[in-house]
Amino acid sequence: MNLKTRALNTVPFVSVENMMNLVRDIGVERFLTELSLYIAEDFRRWPLFDKTPRVAAHSRDGVIELMPTSDGIAYGFKYVNGHPKNTRDGLQTVTAFGFLSDVATGYPVLMTEMTILTALRTAATSALVAQHLMPHRATVMALIGNGAQSEFQALAFKAICGIDEVRLYDIDPSATRRCAANLAGRGLKVTACDSAQEAVLGADIITTVTADKTNATILTDNMVGEGVHINAVGGDCPGKTELHRDILTRSRIFVEYPPQTRIEGEIQQLPADHPVTEFWQVLTGTSKGRTSDKEITLFDSVGFATEDFSALRYVQDMLRHHPRSEDLDLLADPDEPRDLFGMLLRAGVA
Amino acid sequence: MNLKTRALNTVPFVSVENMMNLVRDIGVERFLTELSLYIAEDFRRWPLFDKTPRVAAHSRDGVIELMPTSDGIAYGFKYVNGHPKNTRDGLQTVTAFGFLSDVATGYPVLMTEMTILTALRTAATSALVAQHLMPHRATVMALIGNGAQSEFQALAFKAICGIDEVRLYDIDPSATRRCAANLAGRGLKVTACDSAQEAVLGADIITTVTADKTNATILTDNMVGEGVHINAVGGDCPGKTELHRDILTRSRIFVEYPPQTRIEGEIQQLPADHPVTEFWQVLTGTSKGRTSDKEITLFDSVGFATEDFSALRYVQDMLRHHPRSEDLDLLADPDEPRDLFGMLLRAGVA
Repeated sequence: MNLKTRALNTVPFVSVENMMNLVRDIGVERFLTELSLYIAEDFRRWPLFDKTPRVAAHSRDGVIELMPTSDGIAYGFKYVNGHPKNTRDGLQTVTAFGFLSDVATGYPVLMTEMTILTALRTAATSALVAQHLMPHRATVMALIGNGAQSEFQALAFKAICGIDEVRLYDIDPSATRRCAANLAGRGLKVTACDSAQEAVLGADIITTVTADKTNATILTDNMVGEGVHINAVGGDCPGKTELHRDILTRSRIFVEYPPQTRIEGEIQQLPADHPVTEFWQVLTGTSKGRTSDKEITLFDSVGFATEDFSALRYVQDMLRHHPRSEDLDLLADPDEPRDLFGMLLRAGVA
Repeated sequence: MNLKTRALNTVPFVSVENMMNLVRDIGVERFLTELSLYIAEDFRRWPLFDKTPRVAAHSRDGVIELMPTSDGIAYGFKYVNGHPKNTRDGLQTVTAFGFLSDVATGYPVLMTEMTILTALRTAATSALVAQHLMPHRATVMALIGNGAQSEFQALAFKAICGIDEVRLYDIDPSATRRCAANLAGRGLKVTACDSAQEAVLGADIITTVTADKTNATILTDNMVGEGVHINAVGGDCPGKTELHRDILTRSRIFVEYPPQTRIEGEIQQLPADHPVTEFWQVLTGTSKGRTSDKEITLFDSVGFATEDFSALRYVQDMLRHHPRSEDLDLLADPDEPRDLFGMLLRAGVA
């Protein structure tokens, strides 16, 4: 990974196949757990990060975003699209890839697929936050929305928070059946429910991770009892929310980065000065987490560039022991740095 | 290149080696000429483009930038760094790569090295602009600064503007020797000069493309005679300029995109309301180009995202006839789009 120890012209690349190999090498639950430690480490040094807003190109059917950040030593960015209608044509709603670079030289040092990696980091972030906010002895999680992110959420909460039962609900029963089948035999009690109301019965944690809805109301106020932790993952862009406003006003709300969450998160429904707590301050002890057994805590998750940065760092470190990358011939490397044209000449090109 | 006709999980990738192969297949002068036509085509439809400002991450030793743009059908972005001190360690000052994506689906459709491609597009843009602004029957160009960009400039002006003599000067005589050697036998008269003053003698066009200077004065006012076209390439970030202010006030100034050039270009030395002409308006006939034989015209070039977009489009089109790409396994492609975890399961990963 070090510029001194590898060919100057190549960049290690983790393909989709190699990301799957890496997850297999490490084990999915261990991957989620270790990744959550990297995410926590970066949340703890939050003020260090260059928190550039993501750069979004909106179009009729979706959005393409670039999410850069840097800690002054490394620089990372993710390309990610969101096109809800893609599934109709057999395409992914979200595809993603990313790069990590060396700030001192500007040279990229890692390229990786990030569709799978984003699914893992989103779940690892959710579980990390819940670990610090959920009620004592939480064991049951309602999981509303059983799409592509659902199994990752279930396994992250099992591995990181000690959840032993998930109660599934989706408006599409086939999604619930698929999620339940995928989770079978993994040490989780999996209960398929016929309604969101049924799913939240007895749940200590409620995760909402629905997609493709415009200001939907997945949870209404009467469904949320005292002491619950809500992990709201699905509402993540302007006009896309999952929770009734009355739930928000009853909850203590935790966010990643307020300027982004006020635009993209559930709190877009609230006045711009509604109090929220930045999660990194809970980790550093600057702000309180849960203050009573009866408090409803709510993580209004939208996904932030530092979490991708943590994921890129984790993958880079894992490659040291699991050589699941190939070398991409990405960087022109003339013998003499200023002689780019000479490189073409000597290759017989020009 | 079409999503319907290739595997859903792969993205065509043009490595450095394949970019060199592509330049060899096409020929460097033809490549520059055809590329200038793509750049002109995109300048002509300038109002269509989403002109997001580049996103820059500055550090002590350099800058890493993301330069996105879109015409509503395709989306392109370039990653590029600028680290002047890199050459000390045998590294490139600038490395670059880029992607082209389909706006309708958000799927990337091309990834390519862009260190070589940026050198080509910068020269093609310079020559395209000069073609429309230089004096009649221009045949001699002074080329001040004989670094990595110099040979590309010389060949672009030969191929596109009909220049038949280049007069070289660099403060480092070895750079001039190397540039002259690289250009030998290509149908250009090449004259190595001992000073910038000597280089500009008899020149119809003056190209300044020096690097690593802070508000240097490569050209002073007395060196620039009537009727000359100045192609100022090297001054391209805040605090980095090449021309004496008095030259600017004597010239009609043409720019790519005023909001960016006023920050990064030579005109950072002038008041923010100093009149400039946007080059795309010369191409569409909305603004005048050169208005007399005696006028000094000045292209204050900083490089804009649309030029990279044109270069990506050109490479994509060329790959149809010259299959100089390999397939990168970049996009997770589950059988059922919402079943990402199932893809891991079926691969025996989870």
